[in-house]
Amino acid sequence: MTGLELDLSYSTVESSIGSLEPEVLRAHEMLHQGSGLGSEYTGWLHLPERYDRAEFARIEAAAERIRSSSDALVIIGIGGSYLGARAAIDMLSHSFHNQLPRNRRPGCEIYFAGHQISSTYLHHLFEILEGKDVSINVISKSGTTTEPAIAFRLFKTWMEQKYGAEEAKKRIYATTDRAKGALKSLADQEGYETFVVPDDVGGRYSVLTAVGLLPIAAAGVDISALMAGAREAMVEYERPALAENACYRYAAARNALYRQGKMVELLVGYEPSLQYVAEWWKQLFGESEGKEHKGLFPASVQFSTDLHSMGQYIQEGMRILFETVLQFRQPRLEIAIPTVPANSDGLNFLAEKKMGFVNQKAFSGTLLAHVDGQVPNIVLTVPKQDAYSLGHLFYFFEKACALSGYMLGINPFDQPGVESYKRNMFALLGKPGYEAEREALEKRLS
Amino acid sequence: MTGLELDLSYSTVESSIGSLEPEVLRAHEMLHQGSGLGSEYTGWLHLPERYDRAEFARIEAAAERIRSSSDALVIIGIGGSYLGARAAIDMLSHSFHNQLPRNRRPGCEIYFAGHQISSTYLHHLFEILEGKDVSINVISKSGTTTEPAIAFRLFKTWMEQKYGAEEAKKRIYATTDRAKGALKSLADQEGYETFVVPDDVGGRYSVLTAVGLLPIAAAGVDISALMAGAREAMVEYERPALAENACYRYAAARNALYRQGKMVELLVGYEPSLQYVAEWWKQLFGESEGKEHKGLFPASVQFSTDLHSMGQYIQEGMRILFETVLQFRQPRLEIAIPTVPANSDGLNFLAEKKMGFVNQKAFSGTLLAHVDGQVPNIVLTVPKQDAYSLGHLFYFFEKACALSGYMLGINPFDQPGVESYKRNMFALLGKPGYEAEREALEKRLS
Repeated sequence: MTGLELDLSYSTVESSIGSLEPEVLRAHEMLHQGSGLGSEYTGWLHLPERYDRAEFARIEAAAERIRSSSDALVIIGIGGSYLGARAAIDMLSHSFHNQLPRNRRPGCEIYFAGHQISSTYLHHLFEILEGKDVSINVISKSGTTTEPAIAFRLFKTWMEQKYGAEEAKKRIYATTDRAKGALKSLADQEGYETFVVPDDVGGRYSVLTAVGLLPIAAAGVDISALMAGAREAMVEYERPALAENACYRYAAARNALYRQGKMVELLVGYEPSLQYVAEWWKQLFGESEGKEHKGLFPASVQFSTDLHSMGQYIQEGMRILFETVLQFRQPRLEIAIPTVPANSDGLNFLAEKKMGFVNQKAFSGTLLAHVDGQVPNIVLTVPKQDAYSLGHLFYFFEKACALSGYMLGINPFDQPGVESYKRNMFALLGKPGYEAEREALEKRLS
Repeated sequence: MTGLELDLSYSTVESSIGSLEPEVLRAHEMLHQGSGLGSEYTGWLHLPERYDRAEFARIEAAAERIRSSSDALVIIGIGGSYLGARAAIDMLSHSFHNQLPRNRRPGCEIYFAGHQISSTYLHHLFEILEGKDVSINVISKSGTTTEPAIAFRLFKTWMEQKYGAEEAKKRIYATTDRAKGALKSLADQEGYETFVVPDDVGGRYSVLTAVGLLPIAAAGVDISALMAGAREAMVEYERPALAENACYRYAAARNALYRQGKMVELLVGYEPSLQYVAEWWKQLFGESEGKEHKGLFPASVQFSTDLHSMGQYIQEGMRILFETVLQFRQPRLEIAIPTVPANSDGLNFLAEKKMGFVNQKAFSGTLLAHVDGQVPNIVLTVPKQDAYSLGHLFYFFEKACALSGYMLGINPFDQPGVESYKRNMFALLGKPGYEAEREALEKRLS
């Protein structure tokens, strides 16, 4: 079994999505012929084949240099310059990656910065990095996004104090625009090694570019396997016919559920290492579809943890939910449940059974319970929790999201609403040029 | 300024909640006179005053023993036996607590187990604990909840192999029923020190009992300050009049927004250390109100991180959302933004300003942007990110939730829907007594 398996038999819409096939075909053509809105940002579509091999080799070499010269890599980025790398590293690494002794860990310690504005967090991060050898990967198309730009000011200063200006330059890697922008200019001037954020790939679709690949490789993940998995998905989901294309069936099913009045799509996983895959997925779908007062609200839960917190709501709360469950055919590591002769907890019926078996039955039991509670379920089964499967999954969701967005009638590649808070923030911070807005906003706040 | 400040001026319902005062008064009476549904579970109401002082002293002594004898404490629990402790420890500790050198950390390393069924996670946890001195706190009213019971079987065996049966017994602490149940029997038989899960406090309201207090104290948090903050809140929110009671105004406002058609309440924080406070809050409200096909769906975001992922949806997606923002008057630690003469990132207008100032303006700018996007905002401002304020906040949300649930017309203290998946899971696992269900379920799955 290669690839990913989609089961719509618990979705309530399996038999009705056929009627959406004409819309699916139209969306497929818009995407593949570049005739849809935002088509200038569809470079991700052929990325698993048409990526820059020379840059890929430089990424692998830089990752090797980071791993051999540094105890820790600090990745400075936010949104699409953050979540893809974090999703992959968390899903594919040891649950306590940064705490493992160096000789039992394939990559260096990984830390994130510039993904919020918490001075407390940064203070703590600088404390933890004391005495460690550090490299920096700063990721920003423009170099002027407030959060990473603040963090980079602090880290550049810190690195220059720690290593001197010349050595610091060799330890800073910039992933940015190919030719222009503040970070590109600075990198050229300082002599940082640079990698490219392509013009035709938006942030939330950029995990398979240098944006995601350099941090993922530095953490010790096999990025060739990641790209190979994505390539498998690219070929598999090229067929326009709904019956032959699991990616399109997923897009059609979630649109069908939306049109029936569902408002929230919950991404469900049974492994805690999937938390940031869910965060990546939330950005992908939320930022692509949440416009013109439309779009499913994306949320996520980790089972069985959240069966003991959000489980009650899902079972019996407002019937506005459906679930998309991400399952693996097998866990990465197994443990057997020991026999306890006294059996005080009554669990001897599970003695010598594997925990993976119990987790699997928790999934099946929950599936049926929630379906009985009128929560439709879409089930995605991925063969293994490895880089190849994740590459496939990334591409699956990216293409499903683009198609789904066209079916919804919006541009799945822009994000006009993200500017609103930024404009207000700049004005309130006293940025030159925003004086009139500032006065108006401060009046409203007083 | 003591206590918490509630600002409804951006909520759109500030002027209309007055009409809900009769309902609020009725709910207040149901709660305080014990005449409402589930009144047998309202022991949390007077807990900050009527707690067991002798047990509290034993908790502090046990925490001190754990800290001095162990490098790490493993907390085994799920749902309400997990989230309160995690929320407090994450909010009040160093961002990289477990990685700090022992002499720069007030408590021992803290790990959680039994909060899911991931064999990979447990495998990794056992690896990390190799060579460390460990204590265990197993938390379960009954002792038979599947997830923690499996983890405890594994950890009990591991501890006995590591320390021998006698020493292991001294390192295991059980928080369980006062008199009955599988864990209480085992603890008595083995001689574990035990602490009480009170009969009149449900799991999601139990953070200020031994359930939360022992782990929180072992992590080095001042639990006397936590209780004192809760006591301040208890006194402050006893007044029935809406105008004098911020807790009741919050409950009224969220009900008013629900009745206007809002479906999702987003808890928003600007510090990453609030992630598990939000998870605790989601269980509290989701499990209390999500029944009879009613109740706001609770979700959470971390800003400014998620302004670059979910921000687009919040600004322009379906207008089913409102936000409840949790703000601190000041950050725990500050950092100034350095001046960079070249100013390539254009941020010199922020040079020498504090990051906390920028984070504050991000909040104000976002507030106005989202309100302009038709997302009502409720703002809660807490004085400090410390144990006293968190105690106050825990009680504030608990009481608001109880009141809100009564206004919604449901029993805010039961969770009938949580049983559905468990029954199915037991049947599919082959638990004796579930044979008939098993056959029926397996037929549906095939």
